[in-house]
Amino acid sequence: MMTPTPFVPPAQRAAWQRLQALAAAPRPHLRELLREPQREARYALEAAGLRLDFSHQAVDDEVLKALQALADESQVDAQLAALFAGEPINATEGRAVLHVALRGSDAANPPWGEAVATQVRITRQRFLAFAEQAYRGDLRGFTQAPITDVVNLGIGGSDLGPRMAADALACACPAGAVRVHFVSNVDAWALYQTLRGLDPARTLFVAQSKTFTTQETLTLMASAQRWLTDAGCPASGLGAHWAAVTTAPERAVAAGIHAERVFPFWDWVGGRYSIWSAIGLPLAMAIGENAFTQLLTGGAAMDAHVRQASPAQNLPLHMALLGIWNRNFQRMPTHHLAPYPVALANFVRFIQQMDMESNGKRTHVDGSPVGIETGPVVWGGPGIDGQHAYFQLIHQGTHRIPIDFIGVLQEHTPLPLAAEHHRVTLLNLRAQARALAEGRSAAATHALLEAAGQDADRLTPHRAFEGNVPSSTVWLPQLDPSHLGALIAAYEHKVFYQAAIWGIHAFDQWGVELGKTMASAMAQGK
Amino acid sequence: MMTPTPFVPPAQRAAWQRLQALAAAPRPHLRELLREPQREARYALEAAGLRLDFSHQAVDDEVLKALQALADESQVDAQLAALFAGEPINATEGRAVLHVALRGSDAANPPWGEAVATQVRITRQRFLAFAEQAYRGDLRGFTQAPITDVVNLGIGGSDLGPRMAADALACACPAGAVRVHFVSNVDAWALYQTLRGLDPARTLFVAQSKTFTTQETLTLMASAQRWLTDAGCPASGLGAHWAAVTTAPERAVAAGIHAERVFPFWDWVGGRYSIWSAIGLPLAMAIGENAFTQLLTGGAAMDAHVRQASPAQNLPLHMALLGIWNRNFQRMPTHHLAPYPVALANFVRFIQQMDMESNGKRTHVDGSPVGIETGPVVWGGPGIDGQHAYFQLIHQGTHRIPIDFIGVLQEHTPLPLAAEHHRVTLLNLRAQARALAEGRSAAATHALLEAAGQDADRLTPHRAFEGNVPSSTVWLPQLDPSHLGALIAAYEHKVFYQAAIWGIHAFDQWGVELGKTMASAMAQGK
Repeated sequence: MMTPTPFVPPAQRAAWQRLQALAAAPRPHLRELLREPQREARYALEAAGLRLDFSHQAVDDEVLKALQALADESQVDAQLAALFAGEPINATEGRAVLHVALRGSDAANPPWGEAVATQVRITRQRFLAFAEQAYRGDLRGFTQAPITDVVNLGIGGSDLGPRMAADALACACPAGAVRVHFVSNVDAWALYQTLRGLDPARTLFVAQSKTFTTQETLTLMASAQRWLTDAGCPASGLGAHWAAVTTAPERAVAAGIHAERVFPFWDWVGGRYSIWSAIGLPLAMAIGENAFTQLLTGGAAMDAHVRQASPAQNLPLHMALLGIWNRNFQRMPTHHLAPYPVALANFVRFIQQMDMESNGKRTHVDGSPVGIETGPVVWGGPGIDGQHAYFQLIHQGTHRIPIDFIGVLQEHTPLPLAAEHHRVTLLNLRAQARALAEGRSAAATHALLEAAGQDADRLTPHRAFEGNVPSSTVWLPQLDPSHLGALIAAYEHKVFYQAAIWGIHAFDQWGVELGKTMASAMAQGK
Repeated sequence: MMTPTPFVPPAQRAAWQRLQALAAAPRPHLRELLREPQREARYALEAAGLRLDFSHQAVDDEVLKALQALADESQVDAQLAALFAGEPINATEGRAVLHVALRGSDAANPPWGEAVATQVRITRQRFLAFAEQAYRGDLRGFTQAPITDVVNLGIGGSDLGPRMAADALACACPAGAVRVHFVSNVDAWALYQTLRGLDPARTLFVAQSKTFTTQETLTLMASAQRWLTDAGCPASGLGAHWAAVTTAPERAVAAGIHAERVFPFWDWVGGRYSIWSAIGLPLAMAIGENAFTQLLTGGAAMDAHVRQASPAQNLPLHMALLGIWNRNFQRMPTHHLAPYPVALANFVRFIQQMDMESNGKRTHVDGSPVGIETGPVVWGGPGIDGQHAYFQLIHQGTHRIPIDFIGVLQEHTPLPLAAEHHRVTLLNLRAQARALAEGRSAAATHALLEAAGQDADRLTPHRAFEGNVPSSTVWLPQLDPSHLGALIAAYEHKVFYQAAIWGIHAFDQWGVELGKTMASAMAQGK
């Protein structure tokens, strides 16, 4: 991040100390807080069609005011402006951070300048035109048979975003002419189980690799090429079966991929922020150009919101601040994500990378060791499934775990009983948020057990609930491209704001380096 | 668990206090420990074909000895004997805990008695005969068309185990005549996206519900029934499309399922331990009777191991003790699982339930509040994918996160380049274990950067690695039914031993109750 001048470690800021004092004082149980009149209306924010309900967070006005002061003292506005202006806020790599430019907001007078905007526009037109050809069934393989299946080869940021969104939007977007598959893991079974059902003459591979040097992806590419040639594809026909997305187009061309099917992105796009770039190609093939453009529009709407909203109205900023309250002042080391739409199952994996790879850092921007906790362990899964698996621990374990519930108000699955499915789903989401917050006291539990004629004295300790588990719920009106775009962008900005306050670099990832170095050394017998 | 008499809270045991003293003393960095001669040979255990390499755990002989003493003082042997003898160790529900009986070990003279053994044998023969019919393609639907697809309807323990194992063993077992699908989530999209590709005349549903009252599963069943009747299935034909597994067979029969297709299990089988029971029906349909029997055999081999091995040789006991060292004495709140075989991707979700629903408790067996930490937050995913996502945080975040790597020595995917895929996969596993343990000191990092002509002073803090991240690796010779069975049973016993030491009830799950109660109340407008 841009270093505010001079850099003051977070723990030395006045608001931080104020928050420490607030956290150290006795705090009311969430059961009490929820009795406040108007709490649900007052503790909610809206942006780009999303609604953040944070009435079930263990905060009051005083805490919120101190958190907002912390944001102010951390100069988050100036840091956000630096991001949008394309300053080299990824300082350890000397790079700008401009995934926001990919969403094409501010078309008239973009803060990142016309040169970037033009690059983005030209590339977007190219990759979306190609994607639309696939979506419409206009691509042909080496036998002139139509391409019916696309296999994306890429890992991390070249996999998680497009995979998540393709799953999430399958319910909202008319299916096109191709099925899109994702193979990320170099373990042979991942590629084999995908390819065994496919026809080489009708399959297109998309090689996604930022550097085109990732060993895992290169191995997958070599195997895929072998599968094509073993099926009789001549050298002259291979071009019809490959496309590539990379910041190193010359390497893709050198690997034999036709230049017109090589789509660039740039070193100012982090892998985990790259769904908006040509890395979104397989997604665009799955949902079509129009839907992909709506995804961008939704992201841009959230960008406009964070740039224009007052701090008190800024939705992603509040996601960030509530996370900091829970992480640094209430001492909760993990953060749970519970999307109730099953189509968002992979949203958890996507946010795990976005959040943990960005903010899993222990060095301040000025090189000093952080004396505070930074990014939490993010974990979770579809909410209803979680209730029947690990929610026991959230209710009665020795952890206190903050939760982001994600819900969708309207649902349009074409099943006769869909409304009943949806009623049960939403009822469960709301009941969990309430049960986790309120708990059930020993006295109430004892009375219930006694009334039921059970051994109340013995069983009460095992059947009471501490409660006081904080949660937010992010509501989408429906799961469609623009609201998904807004949701992704909201989490991106949340992560940005947290890094801005913690004073860490969110856009490098040097922590992935040592394992690679060690693997190379070990391959050479060291 | 059985309450050792008298119950002494763990923190009052001598070994616990000894461990606290050891943890408080300065401890060597893992980098140092790894230099010990013979460490890899000495810090490993084998059982039922599995090998646990714990050389990369931050322990020495003194710590191990104290941990083993803790197990002894916690009377784990007596508690294990009580489990196998069918004593009502699930005390808050007054039930025995006999999933071990389902694996059929000790056929001659079972510790749980002949009555249970006979029940198990008869039911196993029934459900495996039915599964084999499906596997061989001998089942017919209402038009007499062969059944080609099985859809499992169940959630939690009625889903995660069979789903995980069906995925894991697809690479090892010849495919049968049916494809098996799993629908757990009541969100309509989950059912719809499975059914839309299927033919009602060729589809069999397996309704899995312990109580046959789980609202989510009942809603799925109603929708599935509607799908069959909308496709013209007459009332008289529905029986050909349903089977059920439940502890309440009378409810399944009342719901219209033919009695000969209703398979019981018993209240002494916890949902999360039920893969070995008729709940394994969809798995047996996917892999066949023979392979399912091998899974049971592998589990039984691990049972024989824990009953016969000395404490110092007991593999699951050491998994438990290392976990307790990390959780209670090294203060690590989460536990990471990184299976490198992608076929084991769902093993993480399966263990999340097994571990967190069992040991996410805050009350001792005697009703007193635990004064110690219990079950960790279990999270993770396929290792290679994790390296490109959240491993950044494990390497350079502010957490210290113990890891279980899971690796497979031999791999047989029929791809020409499979050996290269496997080489890269294993190299990465070993490199990560080493990199996380050793780290890279600031001095070493500075020297490297300087040699590379980079701004070493500025970059070193961002590019150094603290290391000292502990891990174990569980090695399977190959991923096949018997070794998977052994692996599952090893984790089951690990969880059991931890609960036995912490003095908590591992086999109830009262924490899921309040959310259900609250949902019912809210549905009635309360």
